[in-house]
Amino acid sequence: MARLDRVAQLRIALAQINCTVGDLDGNADLIAAYARRAADDGAHLVAFPEMALTGYPVEDLALRRSFVEASIGAVRRLAARLADEGLGELPAVVGFLDRREGAAQRYGQPTGMPQNALALLYRGEVRVVSAKHHLPNYGVFDEFRYFVPGDTLPVVRVHGVDVAFAICEDLWQDGGPVAAVRDAGAGLLVVLNSSPYERDKDDERLALCRRRAREAGAALAYVNMVGGQDELVFDGDSLVVDAEGALLARAAQFEEALLVTDLELPAPSEPRPDDTLATTDIEIRRHTLSERPVDPYDPRPSTIADRLDDLAEVYAAIVTGTRDYVRKNRFGSVILGLSGGIDSALTATIATDALGPEMVNVVLMPSRYSSEHSVTDAEELVKRQGITARTVAVGPMIDAFEAAVDIDGLAAENLQSRVRGQLLMTLSNQYGHLVLTTGNKSELATGYSTLYGDSAGGFGPIKDAWKTLVWELASWRNAEAARRGEVPPIPENSITKPPSAELRPGQLDTDSLPDYPVLDALLDDYIGTDLGRAELIAAGHDPALVDRVIRLVDRAEYKRRQYPPGPKISKRNFGRDRRLPITSRWS
Amino acid sequence: MARLDRVAQLRIALAQINCTVGDLDGNADLIAAYARRAADDGAHLVAFPEMALTGYPVEDLALRRSFVEASIGAVRRLAARLADEGLGELPAVVGFLDRREGAAQRYGQPTGMPQNALALLYRGEVRVVSAKHHLPNYGVFDEFRYFVPGDTLPVVRVHGVDVAFAICEDLWQDGGPVAAVRDAGAGLLVVLNSSPYERDKDDERLALCRRRAREAGAALAYVNMVGGQDELVFDGDSLVVDAEGALLARAAQFEEALLVTDLELPAPSEPRPDDTLATTDIEIRRHTLSERPVDPYDPRPSTIADRLDDLAEVYAAIVTGTRDYVRKNRFGSVILGLSGGIDSALTATIATDALGPEMVNVVLMPSRYSSEHSVTDAEELVKRQGITARTVAVGPMIDAFEAAVDIDGLAAENLQSRVRGQLLMTLSNQYGHLVLTTGNKSELATGYSTLYGDSAGGFGPIKDAWKTLVWELASWRNAEAARRGEVPPIPENSITKPPSAELRPGQLDTDSLPDYPVLDALLDDYIGTDLGRAELIAAGHDPALVDRVIRLVDRAEYKRRQYPPGPKISKRNFGRDRRLPITSRWS
Repeated sequence: MARLDRVAQLRIALAQINCTVGDLDGNADLIAAYARRAADDGAHLVAFPEMALTGYPVEDLALRRSFVEASIGAVRRLAARLADEGLGELPAVVGFLDRREGAAQRYGQPTGMPQNALALLYRGEVRVVSAKHHLPNYGVFDEFRYFVPGDTLPVVRVHGVDVAFAICEDLWQDGGPVAAVRDAGAGLLVVLNSSPYERDKDDERLALCRRRAREAGAALAYVNMVGGQDELVFDGDSLVVDAEGALLARAAQFEEALLVTDLELPAPSEPRPDDTLATTDIEIRRHTLSERPVDPYDPRPSTIADRLDDLAEVYAAIVTGTRDYVRKNRFGSVILGLSGGIDSALTATIATDALGPEMVNVVLMPSRYSSEHSVTDAEELVKRQGITARTVAVGPMIDAFEAAVDIDGLAAENLQSRVRGQLLMTLSNQYGHLVLTTGNKSELATGYSTLYGDSAGGFGPIKDAWKTLVWELASWRNAEAARRGEVPPIPENSITKPPSAELRPGQLDTDSLPDYPVLDALLDDYIGTDLGRAELIAAGHDPALVDRVIRLVDRAEYKRRQYPPGPKISKRNFGRDRRLPITSRWS
Repeated sequence: MARLDRVAQLRIALAQINCTVGDLDGNADLIAAYARRAADDGAHLVAFPEMALTGYPVEDLALRRSFVEASIGAVRRLAARLADEGLGELPAVVGFLDRREGAAQRYGQPTGMPQNALALLYRGEVRVVSAKHHLPNYGVFDEFRYFVPGDTLPVVRVHGVDVAFAICEDLWQDGGPVAAVRDAGAGLLVVLNSSPYERDKDDERLALCRRRAREAGAALAYVNMVGGQDELVFDGDSLVVDAEGALLARAAQFEEALLVTDLELPAPSEPRPDDTLATTDIEIRRHTLSERPVDPYDPRPSTIADRLDDLAEVYAAIVTGTRDYVRKNRFGSVILGLSGGIDSALTATIATDALGPEMVNVVLMPSRYSSEHSVTDAEELVKRQGITARTVAVGPMIDAFEAAVDIDGLAAENLQSRVRGQLLMTLSNQYGHLVLTTGNKSELATGYSTLYGDSAGGFGPIKDAWKTLVWELASWRNAEAARRGEVPPIPENSITKPPSAELRPGQLDTDSLPDYPVLDALLDDYIGTDLGRAELIAAGHDPALVDRVIRLVDRAEYKRRQYPPGPKISKRNFGRDRRLPITSRWS
């Protein structure tokens, strides 16, 4: 239908915040603080991420009745609090955990009928509630397990502008809420997200927002969570595009931010479109907060933050995930073993960047098989980064075990690794440091690690980085330091020397494994792309190597199950997004 | 519709077999062997469990195209093979992994459109294919992630009898396939299952089969998987009821079996019922293998196996899960630390019952805090069970660590536990034994264990047993031995003495934890029933204890994530059926 709309201004604020799962009080404080900032900035509407009040993902907490009740209570209290604090006139849209009321539970619906919902808070009350339609059920997501889908599109008149709201996956699927937004003739679509970072998405998010804005015939505001939650890292990157898909504003990645944007939007004259003619089976639910457009004002220029380059982005994701895991689990410091090799060197650097050098403790644990450069390279890193180091020679402990039991070969190699892991855990227990595990994804994939040895710890910052990426990140970080006129944090020799576990004389990784570029390419096709044996060979990988690597990977599943969590940066890591049996004869 | 049906005889064989995930060749061999036995027994139809050909659960393998292709290829080869081996005239119904063909992939459907399907093999060909309708998506099940639901009910005329087929959850849901069976006028419903064992189900399975048979107006044959697959244990318990719900035959629990039953079933005269009048939206698909009833024969008496008592059943589930984990992962032997306490005593007994004493190795690892009875009780158990023991005093290794780092308190306690864990892992690496972990569910729940210490290992037989159940099982096992006139395997003193970790002088579990009956009742309400804080207090638990225990449980999530797998015997264990964030402020 053709309508002659007036144009109205609206200042929208997107609050890109870092929530913690289950911390209803802390998240409410954070939301109130950002609502205050938005009000101080003169915003007419403020939006928070998907499930901002509960944190995301809540996993099986969604099935606990007491938690759903607590979330519903918390959102009501938040509405009252915002009004009490003089913020009641600013409509605030907040993601929370709701419950579908009034319908009998049906087969296939989760117990208690929880919903991934949004609430519009205004003048002390929850004025509008609506639930996510499209529930992702792949990778790390299990939303069919947790949520009952929604079936309404809320369209809220704010200062004369019709604003529609949707949640995350609703934006990614054809038809559904985006089509309903067009039917509804809304001027702005606000989408709440908790969308985790994943490398190599090629700015898919902006392209999608542009396309959906054009499809909806509406400006689109995308607000995302930021920060680490267990294995997930949310990258922020909130943005606003106009109805033609032009980028108007964009927030920084991996930082909390309030993105404030002045928009000129259609302010429809009556009558409204006839919602009974809508093309989807989504019910359009209209609400009015205020009919009168705001008085004309001079718009402020909006911010378009620079995007990080590929390696800067990956590095920031890992640093963010590490910082938040330490902080949200209330650790004051970390400890790790520093071998002089590239994996522990990069992990220490990540820890220093995430937490500051005063919170980072390293232990040098040379054995009879450690080369001279292992110690000197490690000492050089300690000096450059100003972190706290101690040296513990592991010989006496290894000797004590070897006096007690007759062992050789792999058992003797693993023993050394386990003595080191045990020393770190003991120091962790004594001083309250979180142990950082230094294994990379190539090791995890092939099982080239020792259970309870080098794989011991509380968090593994580089567990989702192939060995080749570990080198790239180390070189990038050093170059970045040089660019800033700082001392490169990682000794060059740690980057350039051939990798070795140093568990027997003259050992090199290449004794047991192919060259890492060859190995990582194969692993990425097998694990990342999930190709089968025949497909891997058709893709050009050496058939004998394919068989060998598949066997290694499949047999190491039991080790990966016991590996600590770490930040997910790829499409498929070794966390909850990859669920394979331990016992399986299939490759 | 009223029809005057003739009565026809049919001998049905239910093959309760122990399949391995991914072992397409091995499972096909097993199926062929049981088809041979069924044919030798004169069966007219043989049925195998849900996903017998692939094993169950295949988890993310369902999303790997190459695996789906391999399953489809394997079922075709199996059909040809059965005919080649002279078994082509015996219709065999086999669960396998299929793919939905011919429809475009829609939102919310798993990649590649895999289906949890059954195939009827006859005369060298796959004659009928049909997929599971109701996909469970709770607890350990993620079937919305893996499968596209089916929408047809196959009804196959076999020797003049109309036999309908369905899969597992289809039986548990009202309406759906069971209602369609009545519409179709089938005389027999055969249901393929891979239904895991769970304690306290009160023979729910038989009650359900009785009820569904009456609803369907048909006899019902229920065939279940048996054996352990990672954390799941399938209990078998296949059974047959007539159309009035009377139990006709039942197979033993936790054992492979071929359950052969002679049935008298309606052999409908033409015309068939009008399928267009059906009351469900399931499409009834009719097939005919043979119209002519078998020549009358004298039915054989059928077997109704005795049911195990509660504790016998739980014990059998744990033994089965342990045996199959060891065997299917191709370990020849196990090793565990024997402390003289009840947990390791019961674990050793389970291992001996599962594998035989010659495959069980124990290590006595006394420290300065071990009481005299620890060693003598352990030695007594070794003597009674005839297992292989060695003693390693851990003092020198502990001294070596304590000389290297200054520690006290918890760090010193954990050190002792980790030295023991490391010794077991070292012996495991040297001799190829699988390490059995001896922790119980009360410890896992509260975090009363040492990461990489007593929680180290490959499989934890009693990880889903509360401490109170550990005592019950030990007493039951001894009583069972006495009943059989055998020496009780567990020294009485291990059962009766107060539990202690013996990591400091005079330490008792009750120093840190409430009495186990009180603790376990609270834990079971919190973890098993998923009650929240207020609900626990309302249920009568002490409020201070509720707060303390909730805090302990929630903080120990990071430890449980790194715990080895173990057989699931309860509704909620600490495996994939309970998915909670590590970082959470919610209780």
